[in-house]
Amino acid sequence: MTRAFNFSAGPATLPEAVLRQAQAEMLDWNGIGASIVEISHRSQDFIAVAAQAEADLRALIGIPDDYAVLFLSGGATTHQALLGLNFAAPGQVVDYVVTGHWGKTAIRQAKPYCTVNIAADGEAGGFHDIPARDTWQLTPGAAYVHITANETIHGVEFRDTPDVGDVPLFADFSSSIASEPLDVSKYGVIYAGAQKNLGPVGVAVVIIRKDLFERAGQPRADIFDYRSHAERDSMLNTPPTWNWYLAGLVFKWMLAEGGVAEFARRNAVKSTLVYDAIDASVGFYRNEVVPAARSRMNIPFFLPDDTLTARFVAESKTAGLLALKGHKAVGGIRASLYNALPVEGAQALVDFMRDFQQRNG
Amino acid sequence: MTRAFNFSAGPATLPEAVLRQAQAEMLDWNGIGASIVEISHRSQDFIAVAAQAEADLRALIGIPDDYAVLFLSGGATTHQALLGLNFAAPGQVVDYVVTGHWGKTAIRQAKPYCTVNIAADGEAGGFHDIPARDTWQLTPGAAYVHITANETIHGVEFRDTPDVGDVPLFADFSSSIASEPLDVSKYGVIYAGAQKNLGPVGVAVVIIRKDLFERAGQPRADIFDYRSHAERDSMLNTPPTWNWYLAGLVFKWMLAEGGVAEFARRNAVKSTLVYDAIDASVGFYRNEVVPAARSRMNIPFFLPDDTLTARFVAESKTAGLLALKGHKAVGGIRASLYNALPVEGAQALVDFMRDFQQRNG
Repeated sequence: MTRAFNFSAGPATLPEAVLRQAQAEMLDWNGIGASIVEISHRSQDFIAVAAQAEADLRALIGIPDDYAVLFLSGGATTHQALLGLNFAAPGQVVDYVVTGHWGKTAIRQAKPYCTVNIAADGEAGGFHDIPARDTWQLTPGAAYVHITANETIHGVEFRDTPDVGDVPLFADFSSSIASEPLDVSKYGVIYAGAQKNLGPVGVAVVIIRKDLFERAGQPRADIFDYRSHAERDSMLNTPPTWNWYLAGLVFKWMLAEGGVAEFARRNAVKSTLVYDAIDASVGFYRNEVVPAARSRMNIPFFLPDDTLTARFVAESKTAGLLALKGHKAVGGIRASLYNALPVEGAQALVDFMRDFQQRNG
Repeated sequence: MTRAFNFSAGPATLPEAVLRQAQAEMLDWNGIGASIVEISHRSQDFIAVAAQAEADLRALIGIPDDYAVLFLSGGATTHQALLGLNFAAPGQVVDYVVTGHWGKTAIRQAKPYCTVNIAADGEAGGFHDIPARDTWQLTPGAAYVHITANETIHGVEFRDTPDVGDVPLFADFSSSIASEPLDVSKYGVIYAGAQKNLGPVGVAVVIIRKDLFERAGQPRADIFDYRSHAERDSMLNTPPTWNWYLAGLVFKWMLAEGGVAEFARRNAVKSTLVYDAIDASVGFYRNEVVPAARSRMNIPFFLPDDTLTARFVAESKTAGLLALKGHKAVGGIRASLYNALPVEGAQALVDFMRDFQQRNG
């Protein structure tokens, strides 16, 4: 068995050590005679796993005590719908800053429940930059301001937390959570599907400033009520236990590797390697994002023509570099460099890029 | 490593052969250099896994072509909320037949969206029976009639599909799907969390008669719209891929073992063993459900007092019989006998029961 370097945008590569532990425990977790996926979420064994995962995530990210941490099913999209239902009055204005594809998705989910104001939109500029804060048209009294911390398709990332005054800032951190230090206290809600930086697909983390639970929100089923989930420690119904467990193993691995500060260092090294290779290619490889807004997580880039792009995808796969084909919305190539992708992976990619250019440039 | 016999009500025991395959493939699925949990849901590899799982489930259960099959995140509770949103007009009457705890849960999720009529309710009788069909107070023009095919806590199971005329019958089959032959064509919607008879927790199967998609339903986010999920082959957003994959392995295992007919035979053998042991105990073990409504999947039973109950739970665990403690709502003992629990497990349980009675009766 050979593990390739996997640049998938998500579901994404996981730490090999975590997969090995999950493999070893697959038929018998902790000597109980069953897998962790075969036991009740209400068993003492699973409750301990769940609580440890929450404690480790709190330590990893630095989540203050006045924030609830939920582990829920559904990806980020489900939570994009629940934000309005839980935290906006019916028809209340919510402000969205759109910096790529996922910001638009977030709006589509919110629209049935809220009056969406697009406070800023990078689409006219091809989503190559974050609209300057002083151009945002925010609404006084909005229920919240929503941003997408990192856009996986367009490769645009907020490098600072914008100041939006007293209105709570809600952020989709699916693709950059735990990739560098984060001041959670600047946010009202942070949500993230786990499948990029935190663990496996099938579980999402929602971090909510507890005072927001006092908002009435809108008529909704109990299963769509974040308060109910918080009151029941994310066990209002059967949670995705295996996914939660595996995320917990990833948190432990990240803490053992040196925590978020260390991953910020590695992620800077990896993304600098790739951007430098692009910039040194004298136009053979092109990334169109302005340098100050370039994503450390997802690097889309383009070759001179479609034939070369197809050849790059095919030959990189053969070379053990997986999932480099760009998203169909923009084409080209995309390298995702999440926490679990080692620096050696980025180095192998830039070595391949230089070789490919020499042969085809 | 010793695998115990696991009587968990869910998340429940899985076939050992399936766990072994998942274990073997954990770091490298099909020689691609990555785990199935690390690749895009939109990759050809995963799409093939997903399509095969659907084809196998259709073959296993016998799902007609005019039914859509969705693989979605969220447990049954999420889908209990989505039923009304998708298939009832705002405030339209929906009829619910309550035969235990989960029927009440289903109503709680529907109430924000529908006018719930409780057409029949077994609670006055302690949920020891299915209310006779001719006592149901159905509503002409109701959006649907909802039943819980099997109640895991109270151990009550529909042994026939009730005739409700032209109103579509919706059924929560979480704990009995694929445990015996099922005439899908008698239902409008069948939904089931996978974690009992179909596979791992974290994915639910929703089987929908396609003409129901023509209903407008109620204002809702796209992510809560079954039509959108059906149009996108359950990949409207990132689905719980590992869970879907593992369910697919369970479907293949069930087909190889002889399909639903064979599991119906095994389940009859297992449940008969346990009920016979209860009935032969001359009151030492008590099951209070009327014989015609006894569940083949979950058998709750009671000992003479709490001391004996606690001793039974502790000693059975030591004997390698896991998770026999009853649900806290009713107490006592509960043995869940889903598809993946072998006949030898039920035999071991009744051997233990007889021995325990001899020592304590």
